[in-house]
Amino acid sequence: MRARDLLADFPTVALDTPVIEAARMLADQDLPGLVVVDDDGSPFTILPGTQVLRLAVPAYCQDDPALARVVDEAHADAFLRALDGRTVRAALPQRPRELPVTDPDATMLELAALMARTHSPLVAVVDDGRLLGAVTLQALLDRVLAA
Amino acid sequence: MRARDLLADFPTVALDTPVIEAARMLADQDLPGLVVVDDDGSPFTILPGTQVLRLAVPAYCQDDPALARVVDEAHADAFLRALDGRTVRAALPQRPRELPVTDPDATMLELAALMARTHSPLVAVVDDGRLLGAVTLQALLDRVLAA
Repeated sequence: MRARDLLADFPTVALDTPVIEAARMLADQDLPGLVVVDDDGSPFTILPGTQVLRLAVPAYCQDDPALARVVDEAHADAFLRALDGRTVRAALPQRPRELPVTDPDATMLELAALMARTHSPLVAVVDDGRLLGAVTLQALLDRVLAA
Repeated sequence: MRARDLLADFPTVALDTPVIEAARMLADQDLPGLVVVDDDGSPFTILPGTQVLRLAVPAYCQDDPALARVVDEAHADAFLRALDGRTVRAALPQRPRELPVTDPDATMLELAALMARTHSPLVAVVDDGRLLGAVTLQALLDRVLAA
């Protein structure tokens, strides 16, 4: 089996998508992460669900989650609202990260290694710069266990 | 809202559970990760789905996923089978990692910070060493977006 055999269409967000909308897509469609595309529709980055949270959580809380407790409960409940109007572009980390992106010929082992290494339950499959779709951890495990 | 308001029962695996069975639970029950309990039933570690793959992928492939392509397709398809009989205990990394574990009083912001920091879509909630359940990224987003 190769990545092309496990491909599924995957919703994308643009760099100009508001962060709050990205979070809503993740929640409503029960996605393991998001594929962010640039203005040409090419994959720009892949955000595992946990890293979508990273867009919304103040840096001092990420450095030390216990510090988050000094924020009162009402403000803590509303932490996503603080991002109203902020776009994915503005919220992305400055430092580029290794992307879980591969080509349609990738084997099951290669997909698993990429997911393990990048902590991403989602790998984008790209052919010649064009996004073909994505393979999820769930799809990978289902197929490998049935093999 | 506090962690206790989002708690869900969560299936656990023991240190002696075969890795292949852990992978099957993840796939069949569509879980974002696993809570590993020790012989007393206390949470020992939390394994996000991507780190369950880490138990099965040879280290050289994790260091450089492109190297995985030298493994032929038939063997690559069967990479989980190489672990037949191997237990979670034997497959855990030597180096202890920061655990996404908190107490029932944790706020939404604290849960989000923990998930972002540890790359885990799953936080175990523990009271006095006893596992009460877990909060998933999905449950957190659903509640925070509805607030």
